[in-house]
Amino acid sequence: MSKKKQKTPSESIAIMTELVLPNDTNTLNNLMGGRLLHWMDIASAIAAQKHSNRIVVTASVDNVSFSAPIRLGNVITLTAKVTRSFNSSMEVFIDVLAEDIPGGKKVSSNQAFYTFVAVDQGGSPIDVPEVVPETDEEKEMYAGALRRRQLRLVLAKKMKPEEATELKSIFINE
Amino acid sequence: MSKKKQKTPSESIAIMTELVLPNDTNTLNNLMGGRLLHWMDIASAIAAQKHSNRIVVTASVDNVSFSAPIRLGNVITLTAKVTRSFNSSMEVFIDVLAEDIPGGKKVSSNQAFYTFVAVDQGGSPIDVPEVVPETDEEKEMYAGALRRRQLRLVLAKKMKPEEATELKSIFINE
Amino acid sequence: MSKKKQKTPSESIAIMTELVLPNDTNTLNNLMGGRLLHWMDIASAIAAQKHSNRIVVTASVDNVSFSAPIRLGNVITLTAKVTRSFNSSMEVFIDVLAEDIPGGKKVSSNQAFYTFVAVDQGGSPIDVPEVVPETDEEKEMYAGALRRRQLRLVLAKKMKPEEATELKSIFINE
Amino acid sequence: MSKKKQKTPSESIAIMTELVLPNDTNTLNNLMGGRLLHWMDIASAIAAQKHSNRIVVTASVDNVSFSAPIRLGNVITLTAKVTRSFNSSMEVFIDVLAEDIPGGKKVSSNQAFYTFVAVDQGGSPIDVPEVVPETDEEKEMYAGALRRRQLRLVLAKKMKPEEATELKSIFINE
Amino acid sequence: MSKKKQKTPSESIAIMTELVLPNDTNTLNNLMGGRLLHWMDIASAIAAQKHSNRIVVTASVDNVSFSAPIRLGNVITLTAKVTRSFNSSMEVFIDVLAEDIPGGKKVSSNQAFYTFVAVDQGGSPIDVPEVVPETDEEKEMYAGALRRRQLRLVLAKKMKPEEATELKSIFINE
Amino acid sequence: MSKKKQKTPSESIAIMTELVLPNDTNTLNNLMGGRLLHWMDIASAIAAQKHSNRIVVTASVDNVSFSAPIRLGNVITLTAKVTRSFNSSMEVFIDVLAEDIPGGKKVSSNQAFYTFVAVDQGGSPIDVPEVVPETDEEKEMYAGALRRRQLRLVLAKKMKPEEATELKSIFINE
Repeated sequence: MSKKKQKTPSESIAIMTELVLPNDTNTLNNLMGGRLLHWMDIASAIAAQKHSNRIVVTASVDNVSFSAPIRLGNVITLTAKVTRSFNSSMEVFIDVLAEDIPGGKKVSSNQAFYTFVAVDQGGSPIDVPEVVPETDEEKEMYAGALRRRQLRLVLAKKMKPEEATELKSIFINE
Repeated sequence: MSKKKQKTPSESIAIMTELVLPNDTNTLNNLMGGRLLHWMDIASAIAAQKHSNRIVVTASVDNVSFSAPIRLGNVITLTAKVTRSFNSSMEVFIDVLAEDIPGGKKVSSNQAFYTFVAVDQGGSPIDVPEVVPETDEEKEMYAGALRRRQLRLVLAKKMKPEEATELKSIFINE
Repeated sequence: MSKKKQKTPSESIAIMTELVLPNDTNTLNNLMGGRLLHWMDIASAIAAQKHSNRIVVTASVDNVSFSAPIRLGNVITLTAKVTRSFNSSMEVFIDVLAEDIPGGKKVSSNQAFYTFVAVDQGGSPIDVPEVVPETDEEKEMYAGALRRRQLRLVLAKKMKPEEATELKSIFINE
Repeated sequence: MSKKKQKTPSESIAIMTELVLPNDTNTLNNLMGGRLLHWMDIASAIAAQKHSNRIVVTASVDNVSFSAPIRLGNVITLTAKVTRSFNSSMEVFIDVLAEDIPGGKKVSSNQAFYTFVAVDQGGSPIDVPEVVPETDEEKEMYAGALRRRQLRLVLAKKMKPEEATELKSIFINE
Repeated sequence: MSKKKQKTPSESIAIMTELVLPNDTNTLNNLMGGRLLHWMDIASAIAAQKHSNRIVVTASVDNVSFSAPIRLGNVITLTAKVTRSFNSSMEVFIDVLAEDIPGGKKVSSNQAFYTFVAVDQGGSPIDVPEVVPETDEEKEMYAGALRRRQLRLVLAKKMKPEEATELKSIFINE
Repeated sequence: MSKKKQKTPSESIAIMTELVLPNDTNTLNNLMGGRLLHWMDIASAIAAQKHSNRIVVTASVDNVSFSAPIRLGNVITLTAKVTRSFNSSMEVFIDVLAEDIPGGKKVSSNQAFYTFVAVDQGGSPIDVPEVVPETDEEKEMYAGALRRRQLRLVLAKKMKPEEATELKSIFINE
């Protein structure tokens, strides 16, 4: 019996750097949130591609909060890596760092989870390698992926809240 | 004592139409999720601007699931309106419709909630009008906004799960 | 004998919203006319697609006058609908509104008529439904379409001025 | 008494070359009309800038007809020059040539007249040099500019058709 | 025996005009070097296409030095022409002029040599016409092309420095 | 006497990832050279910014050779780091890797040297930290920077070939 292929999260790391240009900003010269969501999608899609060696399509993005404004001329560094896979789908964690290099300021802008589905040339879902977490942080993300997946299914009305066992446990701490 | 200004959701409706061009698509000629998130941000920002008559900045986007693929040449219609406001922040509901007009196909692609903060010229938060829902659907969205807000705060680690009273009730149905 | 399909102008309405970004403006921070002509073409092409359920190609644009300058950060609303069809060609009326939302200013920017030809997959012209105007404004536009068509033909040197009966009547009021 | 500055049409010639890229085309791989109108605006604005040595804003575009389809990968050559000026406004003639270079095909795509107004740094109209036509073609265009101006004014409802003396003469050939 | 086709440099001239827009500039409002290199590539590729009547691919760009900064709103004129061909490859000389038209300033920005390879539909190299220089400047460029080619080969480590006879002579002037 | 600040090459490393989209490609679906030169400029400018903590402007790019074609949908990884500084100028080495991830192919596409000048807010050149190479490869690049600088000066006609001592030694191997 053939065993499923395995890969570590670090094999999928994708680093992307973007310079905030005028057309990316609003009238206050701050980066528009939608532009950042677009870059985050590209960076995390590349990580999912690296893990699966397949064409991938975005399945969902989890709640994203934007904190401090990012300014025109700042340099954005996006680092993405796969945290866990479920058959043909992959969860990707993405971390965004914003730097005002001449000003010597570097801030952690925001973080998010995107999920992707690997597809073949005809667009049909196809299984991907399993994820084998190595570091403590990777192991924690791997474990949490189950809970986040239940939240996604509940929010997409594909799972009843009372069946989301992992997720429920957060709210009931007896 | 001055009373706060009030506005209906329909006063903030913003309709945006986009044509899916080659650069918006992946190698399967399907619209990339990040591009759609970008358009959704612009459409819902316009709705938030209409409600507040202010410059607005994206504060967060809730979980978004993408269903059927959207193809090159399709026409996307995005309809956004404000559901509820909290001091300087506004929740916007956005509905995305994809049409293959020559093929005579129209599909409901996805829906999402974005939140925005109204700011003055210096970038400081400023209060916005209250929302007065009119239709049944608007009233339901207005009510649900509290629960979604708690989920956002819990996910952003600004609220403890056990304090999210509205949200908890979904998971515990005794 | 089969009767030709009929459609009302309102069935073809396309609403498009655009945010004026830095790259759309000149050195005075005003929207460039060519960028607006580009958006007007896309919005009216979508209306023509909706009327014909076909791929459409731009055949002409009538004289367009730009009035007040539109500023960086303004929100542009383009509303297009088909006014009349002639075999495979359709005339589309498009109205452009510019809003400075934080400033609370809304101005009617300009109006235009674009014409499109419906084509099949091979690029050959193909007949489209007839237009049945409903409102008084739609009826007036339907009637005027004949005169505008003659002007287009005269300007394109495909009709002699003296044969443009409808058009001539404007200049000779005895 | 100071005499007004004079310039020839050839002093304002602007040549612009564009390569038709995927995002400029529709699903039949043909250049979209709106994209071409955008390029024509930029090329003719540069000609108007050269004539006036001022910032210029688009005032109007006359009726434009598109003939043969222009294909992905074609090279577009736009040649613009000022034909006549009226105080602060300038009429620019623009000629568009499309080439399929590997296929050895070159077609005259279309021609148009754009008008521009020269403005100072505050955006107020400012007088421009007079045009002194040299060649026969330039003289003919210079003469015709009066008639085209009347048509623009009549279409913009700023002149009554019966007062458009130059224009009327085309339709009444006794 | 068939003789190879011949063409003059002037048959390949390509003139391209670009307006410097906000997204082309850095935070000092100066044109970014990479954007100019991109435009230079397109202009010189068109010249190479005109000479060969083939699809062309960029093979190399020689050392380019940028002198004075080019400002937002400036008009860039790029003039490219083929200087010499070697089997399937062509050297193109490109000259860049920057104008601040309202300010009445015109500066020679920079010059460069790009090389292209003509390919057939399958992407395989294919021979191109010989270049027959006419003017003194064209003859000098034709002669120098050999030396520049040796420098390219040496820098790409495809030729040993001591074999670059033409090139060596510059450094050893006994 | 104050000692000049020193930094290692690794402190300036900038990694940039780009996805090849339709508008980046020619009619053979291969990445256009000019687009890649544009990305290389941005990536190396970020490295120069990191080294100097200043706004930087592109001064020159050395000869770049393009080898194998890069395809639509490929993922490009650009890695840039400063090799040596001379007063206000910095030489940056940039390495470009192209991956067809679903196809499992990874090729070293090309390498280049860009130079930048650090400027203050007024655009005047300003001194940058010295580079202290650490690895053998960094030391070799540091040493070679002198020779490449002489070549740039000779090509820009700012140095006589016979004075380019370092450079000459390559061609005369007695």
